[in-house]
Amino acid sequence: MTHDWKAIDAAVCVEPGKKSKLSARDCDGAELFPEREAAEAALKDCAKAIDELQDRLWAERSRALLVILQGIDTSGKDGTVRGVFNKCGPLGVNVAAFGKPSEEELAHDYLWRVHMATPKKGMIGVFNRSHYEDVLVVKVRALAPADVVERRYDQINAFEKHLTENGVTVLKFMLHISKDEQRQRLQERLDQPEKNWKFNPGDLEDRKLWDQYQVAYETLLDRCSTAHAPWRVIPADKKWRRNAIIAAIVHGTLEEMNPRYPVVDWKAGDFVVE
Amino acid sequence: MTHDWKAIDAAVCVEPGKKSKLSARDCDGAELFPEREAAEAALKDCAKAIDELQDRLWAERSRALLVILQGIDTSGKDGTVRGVFNKCGPLGVNVAAFGKPSEEELAHDYLWRVHMATPKKGMIGVFNRSHYEDVLVVKVRALAPADVVERRYDQINAFEKHLTENGVTVLKFMLHISKDEQRQRLQERLDQPEKNWKFNPGDLEDRKLWDQYQVAYETLLDRCSTAHAPWRVIPADKKWRRNAIIAAIVHGTLEEMNPRYPVVDWKAGDFVVE
Repeated sequence: MTHDWKAIDAAVCVEPGKKSKLSARDCDGAELFPEREAAEAALKDCAKAIDELQDRLWAERSRALLVILQGIDTSGKDGTVRGVFNKCGPLGVNVAAFGKPSEEELAHDYLWRVHMATPKKGMIGVFNRSHYEDVLVVKVRALAPADVVERRYDQINAFEKHLTENGVTVLKFMLHISKDEQRQRLQERLDQPEKNWKFNPGDLEDRKLWDQYQVAYETLLDRCSTAHAPWRVIPADKKWRRNAIIAAIVHGTLEEMNPRYPVVDWKAGDFVVE
Repeated sequence: MTHDWKAIDAAVCVEPGKKSKLSARDCDGAELFPEREAAEAALKDCAKAIDELQDRLWAERSRALLVILQGIDTSGKDGTVRGVFNKCGPLGVNVAAFGKPSEEELAHDYLWRVHMATPKKGMIGVFNRSHYEDVLVVKVRALAPADVVERRYDQINAFEKHLTENGVTVLKFMLHISKDEQRQRLQERLDQPEKNWKFNPGDLEDRKLWDQYQVAYETLLDRCSTAHAPWRVIPADKKWRRNAIIAAIVHGTLEEMNPRYPVVDWKAGDFVVE
């Protein structure tokens, strides 16, 4: 590895108990991977290593990794899944996308569908949006009373603590793009026929609420970056850099988890294959 | 009502923060419903009232009631469901029984299958055994390391707090029978042909661990009787008294929840049925 993942991680991590200062955080991140070629080489190495480590995670079958991706429209959640996890493929990685809840989901507490989708031992689970929408869109659009939303930060922290204490490592990435970058990406969706399908008029409504969303993000970063599951704010204006940073952190985290192939209690010579 | 449910409840409730003193608790409870005839009449009234209140709970569709039944073999968990909830029927009451976890369930954290089975808004959910088995049989038979079990009490408290903060009222009943009563009930299963199917040789193995189970129960009563979800220890040697006590508490709790039929914004005269 030519990059220092610990230094990259420290630069993007929101220190638990500290203010996240979201507005002061860079959407470009040039100092982390200055050169595109080196970033793409690092991504390639990391994606391969993640695939190998996932294989060991599955063989060990005692722990799981949950990667939570949050970010406003066009911030690149799908692109991150493709860039970082395509090498792994669907056998070892489950992606769960959380859209507008169904009637059945709304009839339960908001963590019900989320808990159900957590990865089983041996797997990497990726959440494309998550329970954090319950303190984002729900807050900004006042879909629940303020005091109900207010209680959710502690509930989310307790839930994630439970997961980490039960063998699930939780990595939370906020994909941080600038308002100008979002304008360009939305415009592309309008202008390029092959991207038209991605355009949703509702995105323009949310764009009008840009400042309110930033405040809601800042609050959840302040309150839910915990020792057991800290938040990372990823500069995401450059897709190649975003992918390189996230892959570096996922790779480093899996290496620290250090999953091991189980030791068997027999020798090859004990068996005869006829 | 001829009985004072608040007084009955106070007699069986484990005060949060206090020692449960399980061994000093009575398995007979004669002072609560001294006469069988009156107990049976009270049960009948309460079962009817529970059915009516469940109807209002469903119409309101904003809250749920979760009844957790725990107790050693033969303590009467199935009998309680029949006695207290048969009047309601399956439309408004879901019973979830938690046996030995499946491979899929074991591949997730131990609260995963439990959370999935929680009642949706409008319903009464009954757990026949529950997540408490993860600090009972798992502890007594050392199916998980001691430090893992040790962490579960706080995790369970946080989980139940989350449920109660999200509209689920949690009622926890431990069916408390004496060792002699269990001997008689197991003997009946051996002697009476129509009860033979209930006999499981494993029950005798668990009976040998009677004292260890009592200690494990005492610990969970001490640590998980919380302000948001206190434990009730129900004298259960007499089936008719057990049912009357539980029905009185379920009824009283539902009355306090006071579910209401929604007010509609039209008058019957607004419509013509042709």
